[in-house]
Amino acid sequence: MMDIKFGIVGFGFMGTVHLQMLTAMEGARVTAVCDIDPEPLANVPAGISTCTDARELFRDDNVDVALIAANNDQHKHLVIEAARAGKHVLCEKPAALSVADLDEMEKACKEAGVTFTVHQQRRFDVDYRTAKAVFDSQTLGKVYTIKSSLYGFNGNMHDWHIYPEQGGGMLYDWGVHLLDQLLWMIPGRITAVFADLRSVINKEVDDYFKILMRFESGIMAELELGTYYLSDKDDWFERHWFIGGNEGTMYGDGFEGCRGAIVRTTELLTSAPTGKRSMTAAGPTRSFGPPPPGRIVSEPVTPATTKHSDFFANYLRALRGEEEMLVTITQVRRVLKLMDAVRESARTGRSVDFE
Amino acid sequence: MMDIKFGIVGFGFMGTVHLQMLTAMEGARVTAVCDIDPEPLANVPAGISTCTDARELFRDDNVDVALIAANNDQHKHLVIEAARAGKHVLCEKPAALSVADLDEMEKACKEAGVTFTVHQQRRFDVDYRTAKAVFDSQTLGKVYTIKSSLYGFNGNMHDWHIYPEQGGGMLYDWGVHLLDQLLWMIPGRITAVFADLRSVINKEVDDYFKILMRFESGIMAELELGTYYLSDKDDWFERHWFIGGNEGTMYGDGFEGCRGAIVRTTELLTSAPTGKRSMTAAGPTRSFGPPPPGRIVSEPVTPATTKHSDFFANYLRALRGEEEMLVTITQVRRVLKLMDAVRESARTGRSVDFE
Repeated sequence: MMDIKFGIVGFGFMGTVHLQMLTAMEGARVTAVCDIDPEPLANVPAGISTCTDARELFRDDNVDVALIAANNDQHKHLVIEAARAGKHVLCEKPAALSVADLDEMEKACKEAGVTFTVHQQRRFDVDYRTAKAVFDSQTLGKVYTIKSSLYGFNGNMHDWHIYPEQGGGMLYDWGVHLLDQLLWMIPGRITAVFADLRSVINKEVDDYFKILMRFESGIMAELELGTYYLSDKDDWFERHWFIGGNEGTMYGDGFEGCRGAIVRTTELLTSAPTGKRSMTAAGPTRSFGPPPPGRIVSEPVTPATTKHSDFFANYLRALRGEEEMLVTITQVRRVLKLMDAVRESARTGRSVDFE
Repeated sequence: MMDIKFGIVGFGFMGTVHLQMLTAMEGARVTAVCDIDPEPLANVPAGISTCTDARELFRDDNVDVALIAANNDQHKHLVIEAARAGKHVLCEKPAALSVADLDEMEKACKEAGVTFTVHQQRRFDVDYRTAKAVFDSQTLGKVYTIKSSLYGFNGNMHDWHIYPEQGGGMLYDWGVHLLDQLLWMIPGRITAVFADLRSVINKEVDDYFKILMRFESGIMAELELGTYYLSDKDDWFERHWFIGGNEGTMYGDGFEGCRGAIVRTTELLTSAPTGKRSMTAAGPTRSFGPPPPGRIVSEPVTPATTKHSDFFANYLRALRGEEEMLVTITQVRRVLKLMDAVRESARTGRSVDFE
């Protein structure tokens, strides 16, 4: 079986990660790397061709897939040029800065007869897949709330992410992943979005967001990310999940693993019949405050065993026609539309009807 | 100085608490207790008159203040009758089940020339006043988020709170306190409300709510209460505060005290100049993940020293004309209107414009 040959366009952080990943993967090989800046290209291993003009890489017969990892504002023209050169396109997220741009990019790929997908590899994050497995198992009964959050201490972003004209900001950087996770997990339409989007520390790009999504199914999903959202509690600067249902709760904390539990109560408060009071000499039956010993029971969650390379494993199999591509442009478009609704809600201060 | 004489109407949980409180307070005395159920009246200490018809208590010349602690749906007619009998009126929360009812009650008190206020004693809760003091001190810089939350494990409510027609449900029971706290803390208009209100365990009344309030000042306030919102983490079934500003964060946990800290970071991430990358051999400068040692600094918060009796101390001084009454009907009306907006938002699934 022939290796699938990748040309990486943009050799910054993600370009470097991709080179390492694909070099280690069976059935894949990086044959070309491009960056407009010649400096990082010095780090490209021997045997891989380099260039500073993406058009050169796109003309290279030794490249099957153009992996676009340049700054966000460069994705559109690079994807279109790669497609027209007959390369399959795998693009970094966010694929596009607008739905209209994505439509053009998809059109170019369809016209050229090449595949087009997006590197939404966080569908394989352990924290996410652990929470998703608990949700999917329906062990929590009827779920009413799902919270996904991530807090940081730096208040800022690295590299070009501080520049709005380059597609900077946390909504584009992390929001696109975290929204994609929730949409790939929770079935059904979103009826309304209410969002807050801020520049708390940064001057020009968003570095905090809170997004509430009301699903037709009855679930309220909440996403919160703060780059300057501090605590000295353990595990604070990590990914957090909370899923609340009418038969239990699941929480999970952790970037790499997922430290958490499914928690239930052994006995609900018994309501007094009409006209009777449940007050005792020690006060009324309490709705809040510490539970009596034994009232709360928890079982550990089993962390998922997914990993980043699973994304590429699917990608390689899909290119060979062995299975469906995991990330469809229809899904990518829905997340972009959702980000538009988030920005509109934050701007108007009102909820935005969706779908 | 003559004692101010209280007649308590409704000798359930709060009536009993009031009797204990006022018996211990200098300048106050309970002279009469009424309940439609004769059974609990057997526990009223000797020397205090008892009756099962509130009109009897209202006719009693030995009563200055009618303290209305009956079920929520009884407040309206009891307040109006007490006022017409010439008694000052101190009513349990929620004072009324609608703004129109409150208007009628206030009108009756004004016409009778008696004072009217509401037992919003949770303005003196230690957790709240600790958080409020930090907020007021402006040590967190520009505040963007304030979260107040409370989680329980029982899934249910005691006594008549399970009956909607008696004014049951957690929004009326706790929501009215928790909203009052936020409104008394955060200055300025609320422009929009987005809310979720659920019956997770209970069949007929709300037992979960999440309320987002967007203030004109730029603050997004969030209130969340769940009676079946579980975790096995320490201090979970407690009051929680989180205040995020651009110069630090404050958190506090605890019903009785307020275990918390003000947390800051010693160094923000330094943005690379345009075109430069901050990536190193060890990877890029991280926005998330564990902070390096020493990066996070925290200072303890000083718990407030307020207590429940402070409410009555103000009340007694106000009745003697020595200071203003802390809780005004204008404030009470604003909270009732806000609860209407919460119900409307929960019903429509959209945000509701407010003020």
